[in-house]
Amino acid sequence: MDLWFTEFQTKNVGITLKTTRTLYHEQSEFQDIAIIDTVEFGRMLALDGLVQTTVRDEYIYHEMIAHVPLFTHPAPRRVLVVGGGDGGTIREVVKHPVLEEAVMVEIDGKVVEACRQFLPETSSSLSDPRVVLKIDDGIRHVKESETCYDVIIIDSSEPIGPGAGLFTRDFYQSVYRALKDDGLMVAQTESPFFNADLIRDVYRSMRDVFPIARVYMAPVPTYPGGLWTFTIGSKKYDPVAPPRVDAPLPATRYYNREVHAGSFMLPKLVADLLAP
Amino acid sequence: MDLWFTEFQTKNVGITLKTTRTLYHEQSEFQDIAIIDTVEFGRMLALDGLVQTTVRDEYIYHEMIAHVPLFTHPAPRRVLVVGGGDGGTIREVVKHPVLEEAVMVEIDGKVVEACRQFLPETSSSLSDPRVVLKIDDGIRHVKESETCYDVIIIDSSEPIGPGAGLFTRDFYQSVYRALKDDGLMVAQTESPFFNADLIRDVYRSMRDVFPIARVYMAPVPTYPGGLWTFTIGSKKYDPVAPPRVDAPLPATRYYNREVHAGSFMLPKLVADLLAP
Repeated sequence: MDLWFTEFQTKNVGITLKTTRTLYHEQSEFQDIAIIDTVEFGRMLALDGLVQTTVRDEYIYHEMIAHVPLFTHPAPRRVLVVGGGDGGTIREVVKHPVLEEAVMVEIDGKVVEACRQFLPETSSSLSDPRVVLKIDDGIRHVKESETCYDVIIIDSSEPIGPGAGLFTRDFYQSVYRALKDDGLMVAQTESPFFNADLIRDVYRSMRDVFPIARVYMAPVPTYPGGLWTFTIGSKKYDPVAPPRVDAPLPATRYYNREVHAGSFMLPKLVADLLAP
Repeated sequence: MDLWFTEFQTKNVGITLKTTRTLYHEQSEFQDIAIIDTVEFGRMLALDGLVQTTVRDEYIYHEMIAHVPLFTHPAPRRVLVVGGGDGGTIREVVKHPVLEEAVMVEIDGKVVEACRQFLPETSSSLSDPRVVLKIDDGIRHVKESETCYDVIIIDSSEPIGPGAGLFTRDFYQSVYRALKDDGLMVAQTESPFFNADLIRDVYRSMRDVFPIARVYMAPVPTYPGGLWTFTIGSKKYDPVAPPRVDAPLPATRYYNREVHAGSFMLPKLVADLLAP
C-alpha cells in the first residue's frame, strides 16, 4: 500500500509526497500537527496540512532566515525568534559565537514537543544554554519588549491561523521598538508567484517603519512555487553591504558570501513589485 | 468532474495540476505529446508526461537560457537553438536587434506543429524572417557545422529519450567546433536537488572542452525542485563579466542586469559540486 501526502498549495496545484510512516498527529489548541516520514524529503512537519519543514530541504530556509540578518549585524548578541517551533532557526542562530542570548517565543508548545521528540536534527539546539524558550504569544512578547534585541527573526507559518498577526504594520512597529538602536528584523514573506500582494504590502509597511527595507530570496523545493522571499527591516545596517563580510562562516550547506549578495539581486517580477 | 495532471518528478514526489481541457494528445515518432489547459499555470506542453512549458512560468526559463548567453556575447549575429520546439527560446533570441540569423533545429516536427497551433504566445516568433527552422537531428546538425555560430543554445528535454545525446562530452566537442572563435554555448542542466551528478558531469565536460565554464540558476515553479541550472561553455567571454552591460534591455519579465549577476552567485551545495 502506498500512502501519499498531498498539499494543495492553491486550489489548483498540489505537491504530493510518498510517505512511509505517520509518527505524530495531534490537534493542538492552535492547529493540526503532523510529523510524517516521506521517502523523497525525509521526515516532515506539517501544520494544518501545509509543509513547514522537511529534513532534506529545511537547511536552506533556516540558514537564509538566520545568517543573512546575523551577518548583517556587526555583533548579534541578543536575538529573538518569533515562531520557529521546529528549532531549525535557533540551530543556525547559535552558530554565531558572539551570541549571548537567543529568546524563542513559540505560541504552540505542542509543536516544540513534537519536534523535540521526532525531529532531533532540527530541534536539538533548543537545549543550548544560551537559548531561552518561551511558550507564549510572540506578538505580546514583542509588545512588552523595549530596546532589547539586536536581531528579531519572524519565523512564522502562513499568514492565516496563528501566524496572521505577524504580517501587519502594527506588529512591525512593535518590533521596531523592541529592537536596539541599530537593530534589524527579518520575516519570511511567502512566494513571489502566489503571494505577490503580500510581499508588496509587507515591504511597504517595513519601508514605512524602518529606514532600510530589503527583500531577498531563496529556493525551497517543498514550498509553493519552490521560491521563497524574506523581508528585512533595519535601523542602521544595510544587508546588501553587510559589515561582517570577513567574519568566519559557520558550517552551512546553502549559505555563503556569494549567496548573501546574490539573494538580493531580484528578478524583474519581484523588483517591479517593490517599485515606489 | 475534476481532472488532475500529475507528474511524478521522481518515484516519490509529484506535482499535480488541475486541468480544464486536453487540446492535443498524440504519439510522435519520438515521444508522447500533450497540450493541456491547467487552471494554475495556464496552457501546458508535456512530453512523455513531463511538464516542458506552461504559459504562466515559461518566461523565466526562456529568458534565462537566452539572454544570459546573448548578453555575454558582444554581437550575437548567428545563433543556433537545438531543441526548443515550443519556440519560447527563439522568441527571446529574436529580441536582440544585432541578430541576423537564428537557426532552430528541433528533432520532432509534431512538437512544433502542436505549439504553433495551441501555444501562440510561446511559438509566434518562429515565423520571424530571421528564423530558419529545421526539423532534424540537432546532434547531426552541430556535427556538420563548422565555425558558424556566435552562440549555441541547447534547449533540450530531459537527459532521457531524444535528449540523451545532448548531455555528452562528445557533443560539447562538436558544439565547440561549430562555434566561431569567440563563441559560447549554454545548455539547460536540470535540478541541483535531483540531478546533482548530471550537473557535476556536464560542468566537468564543458570545463575540459572550453576555457571558461560557468553554472547559473533560475527558479522554475513547475520543474522538479523548483530550481533549475544552466551551464555555459565559452571560448572567450566570461558570462560573469559580460561585455554588453550597457546594451539596452529588451522587454522581459524576469531577466535584468541584477539577475544576470546574481544567478552566478551559487549556494554552497552547488559550488561544492563544481569544486575541482
